[in-house]
Amino acid sequence: MTVAEYMMDFLKKKGVDTAFVITGGQAMYLNDALCRTHDIRSIFVHHEQAATMSADAYSRITGKLGFVLVTAGPGAINATNGLVGGFTDSAPMMVISGQSNLAFVEYMSKSNIRQYGVQGINTRDFVEKGVKYFATVDDPAKIAYYMERAYYMALEGRPGPVWLEVPLNVQGMQVPEKILYSFTPEESLFSAKKCKEACEKIANALSNSKRPLVMAGQGVRLAGVVDEFMQFIEKNNIPVITTRLGIDLIEYEHPLFVGHPGNYGDRPANITAQNADVIVVLGSRMSTSSIGHDSKMFGRNADIYVVDVDKEELNKPGPNIKGRFMEDLRFFMPELNNASVDFTENHDEWAKFCENLKHKYPVMLPEYRDGEKVNSYYLIDQICELLDNETAVLVDTGSCFHVAAQGWKLRKGQRFLTTGGLSSMGYWCAVLGACAANNYKNTIVITGDGSLQMNIQEFATIKHLNKPIKVIIINNNGYLLIRQTQRTYMEDRFFGESPESGLFCPDTMAIAAAYGIKGVRIENPGELESKLRDVLEYDKPVICEVMCPEWQAIIPRVSSDKLPDGTLRQRNFEDMYPFLPENELASCMIGKKT
Amino acid sequence: MTVAEYMMDFLKKKGVDTAFVITGGQAMYLNDALCRTHDIRSIFVHHEQAATMSADAYSRITGKLGFVLVTAGPGAINATNGLVGGFTDSAPMMVISGQSNLAFVEYMSKSNIRQYGVQGINTRDFVEKGVKYFATVDDPAKIAYYMERAYYMALEGRPGPVWLEVPLNVQGMQVPEKILYSFTPEESLFSAKKCKEACEKIANALSNSKRPLVMAGQGVRLAGVVDEFMQFIEKNNIPVITTRLGIDLIEYEHPLFVGHPGNYGDRPANITAQNADVIVVLGSRMSTSSIGHDSKMFGRNADIYVVDVDKEELNKPGPNIKGRFMEDLRFFMPELNNASVDFTENHDEWAKFCENLKHKYPVMLPEYRDGEKVNSYYLIDQICELLDNETAVLVDTGSCFHVAAQGWKLRKGQRFLTTGGLSSMGYWCAVLGACAANNYKNTIVITGDGSLQMNIQEFATIKHLNKPIKVIIINNNGYLLIRQTQRTYMEDRFFGESPESGLFCPDTMAIAAAYGIKGVRIENPGELESKLRDVLEYDKPVICEVMCPEWQAIIPRVSSDKLPDGTLRQRNFEDMYPFLPENELASCMIGKKT
Repeated sequence: MTVAEYMMDFLKKKGVDTAFVITGGQAMYLNDALCRTHDIRSIFVHHEQAATMSADAYSRITGKLGFVLVTAGPGAINATNGLVGGFTDSAPMMVISGQSNLAFVEYMSKSNIRQYGVQGINTRDFVEKGVKYFATVDDPAKIAYYMERAYYMALEGRPGPVWLEVPLNVQGMQVPEKILYSFTPEESLFSAKKCKEACEKIANALSNSKRPLVMAGQGVRLAGVVDEFMQFIEKNNIPVITTRLGIDLIEYEHPLFVGHPGNYGDRPANITAQNADVIVVLGSRMSTSSIGHDSKMFGRNADIYVVDVDKEELNKPGPNIKGRFMEDLRFFMPELNNASVDFTENHDEWAKFCENLKHKYPVMLPEYRDGEKVNSYYLIDQICELLDNETAVLVDTGSCFHVAAQGWKLRKGQRFLTTGGLSSMGYWCAVLGACAANNYKNTIVITGDGSLQMNIQEFATIKHLNKPIKVIIINNNGYLLIRQTQRTYMEDRFFGESPESGLFCPDTMAIAAAYGIKGVRIENPGELESKLRDVLEYDKPVICEVMCPEWQAIIPRVSSDKLPDGTLRQRNFEDMYPFLPENELASCMIGKKT
Repeated sequence: MTVAEYMMDFLKKKGVDTAFVITGGQAMYLNDALCRTHDIRSIFVHHEQAATMSADAYSRITGKLGFVLVTAGPGAINATNGLVGGFTDSAPMMVISGQSNLAFVEYMSKSNIRQYGVQGINTRDFVEKGVKYFATVDDPAKIAYYMERAYYMALEGRPGPVWLEVPLNVQGMQVPEKILYSFTPEESLFSAKKCKEACEKIANALSNSKRPLVMAGQGVRLAGVVDEFMQFIEKNNIPVITTRLGIDLIEYEHPLFVGHPGNYGDRPANITAQNADVIVVLGSRMSTSSIGHDSKMFGRNADIYVVDVDKEELNKPGPNIKGRFMEDLRFFMPELNNASVDFTENHDEWAKFCENLKHKYPVMLPEYRDGEKVNSYYLIDQICELLDNETAVLVDTGSCFHVAAQGWKLRKGQRFLTTGGLSSMGYWCAVLGACAANNYKNTIVITGDGSLQMNIQEFATIKHLNKPIKVIIINNNGYLLIRQTQRTYMEDRFFGESPESGLFCPDTMAIAAAYGIKGVRIENPGELESKLRDVLEYDKPVICEVMCPEWQAIIPRVSSDKLPDGTLRQRNFEDMYPFLPENELASCMIGKKT
């Protein structure tokens, strides 16, 4: 068995069923070994960025390893965007890349030479800080060690990408029959026993709380404890707000679900966070977009307790945190259910107050149904109406990111995924991975006409795959957020945001037709529902473009005031634009610290 | 004046006239400052990769700084491919990127946190090994220092990219009127005086040579000494072979020009290299593709002297080099002309022998004119025939790279550029930069249907720019080189190389039409000339697809034999496939070491 064969066999045995691939000369034996591994389906994309983005979505939806195979040099470099996105968003993925012969890699690693060997660059230099583990496979006798360690690292603790590069002359080497090196992980930092104390502290804080709140992030999902999480909040009747990456933890209609906090969150969540007296943060790193640019203002009447597996995230400067607990929710969440929370005061009214906020301040307003073009909040609202819970949903970045995350009304069991930390335009092509993760059932992605171009080549892959992938494009004539920034801060000096200022985006329907994919354009609110229904029901790929206003307002949002010295100061986190009348906002603030 | 304004003003004063840009929130003040700098034309691309690739081509054609402006996070990461390509190919470019606020960057640089701030990743981690200089602009008082140092570093010695990232809160800060810090370069390692000794050694070696040869690379061009170089070889009647990046140093018809050495070079150059008794290598790093996988076999009858500005390249393991001289050709080349080369034996016959080889073994053969589809060597031959010397030519990688480089017959004064060290598919979009560098006159790029998809989004930019950019696509139904590898080494196990094995490429003419660009398809050799003429004469963009054989042979090439143990052994460098009859090859080998 060769090194390349061993690697593919290892992955197959681990249950990997999908590979995102671009072939290449420096990966020829790896490619051939994968070719002969019939249990792994290879999806050939047209830019390595799409491979890593797809593996990111695939792995975060399934919880299984996302697998990418690329070649050396440009193949490796092109993969970095999705890699870094997967790193910031905790995606367990493995990239295997080809490389020049071992002697070239070894020489590059000890010299400052710019490039050596055919397409040989020192891959490690460009990707090491975006992975949990990187190794050059330098010895066939060690291949078991490298694979086991890489696999373990991708999935343990806070998940993330790992990378193995395999020099061309090593790929075809025979693996010795007797495995000399294998990998044994160190004893885990985490255990059920170890987290008992933290659970008791949090249970105790909650017991003394009058207005408890849970803020939950993707960590709950990645730890596989969604059921335990639901059990906890329901048993204790604690309202919940979810972050961008935690959106699909709890359905919109659940009485304990309040909303999403953040700069482009919603009013109910932001107000709730400012009224709570205890906030327990579970599996969220409390990113700037979730808790505001002025993070000290988040939860300003609360004692905040944070449970996260990543000590770097726990220790970063930011909000006033009373208790930081480095714990793995796999152990922590069941243990927390064992700890006794015994509220000294009844907080049913508080829970009701939060639920009422949700209904009082919806993101989607009736007037959004009007207009010549389609208000994108109305679009999102209609998509939510029409989707079943078997359709997976992916969202790109840009204004569509805010609109979809704000306006989404999750159904129970529905999966919803977006790009978080890196927030990369063009993430929409990860829909290839999302569709594979969703067993090739209906999968939709919402993007913008600007982001679409960044990975337009993947229309070819969508066409070839021929599964019910629905690309829904919010067309606002270029880059909407940039346009709004240039109006707000640059006195209407528009620059690279629309054709008029130098950025031309082509006719999407014509592009769809050129790639041989069905195209549907929705011009106005009147035809929205029926056309959308057709798009969602079609059993093959569809490109659906929705014509939206060029000046669509993205609201509500936390806003800033410009101070006399030109700097910006964030308003109170609960005081979102459009501003509520002073009295009305005051009436919402029931939880001031006494 | 703000930091952002200072930076744009600095570049303007240095004569920078073009910027390759994608706007972004974290670069908003930089974007606005550029918007107000009317002397710099901004070209808005649709993926940051296209910005750095364009700047690479622009800078290598003009010798001036290529300028890229991108935003933080994904903008920076997306720029890496063109950046690394520019690094390996010595392109003087400057990337300026936005970034989260300074405090976030400072925190990231001292912690292991994965991501911090809005789209904030620690850019330095991912790009530093691909640039000559990287800095975070952390103080408005130091902006002059940073700009001067970055500008100097990009252009001095062996050119290459530099990178400045500017945190959002620094971009708009006022630069103090009194500049406190400025940059003074250290005394140069290079001077006319210092290189005298090396010149004499080389002059002396040449004087005693019977079969002298010069191998010239891009360094001659980058040092701006093409005239001095021509003067030297003409004065001394020395035959010349040029590497891939040095192709446009000397015209095909020049009696001293022999060809291009390499794995996919040509017979005349490879045979000449093996007959020479002295080879002087000027401004070439002797890459694997130029001198073969078994580099010790290159110039095996010669004493090799190498003059290069980069000590890392000079000192790498590889060919048997007799003299290594770390010198800047700016000084060296004029000085070499001053040194007296006084041949002890007349070598006119040798020069004639080399010239005869060129005519005896042309790459383009008469039978290539036939066939149902268009032989790509015939295509290249026809393009060469029809082009004037004002048309700049760019070549992507893949099989088109080999075919175009092998078959090109350069006209005097014509510019010809390709991707060298990184050899990145999708490089074709650098034609945007090449066209700007060529004063928006006719500019053509040759690519393949596989590479095309990697940056297909740039059709939008080409359409918007509306200049005579001609994209010529060799359609061989996917990835030709991969297909050939899979036939040769994998017993026809085809995998991800054509629609049949999982890689679908769309109808290019339909794509061109969708982007609103004129499309021309050439189906057979009979219509090649007339249609090509139309394409080249049209004064606006054209996408021209040429239908070529799926199994086009790429010949001649240095080949390898498979040894009994499965490893490959390279044949003699001069013994290219298709193999010459033994006698005929022997009759070419006049220069065996005695």
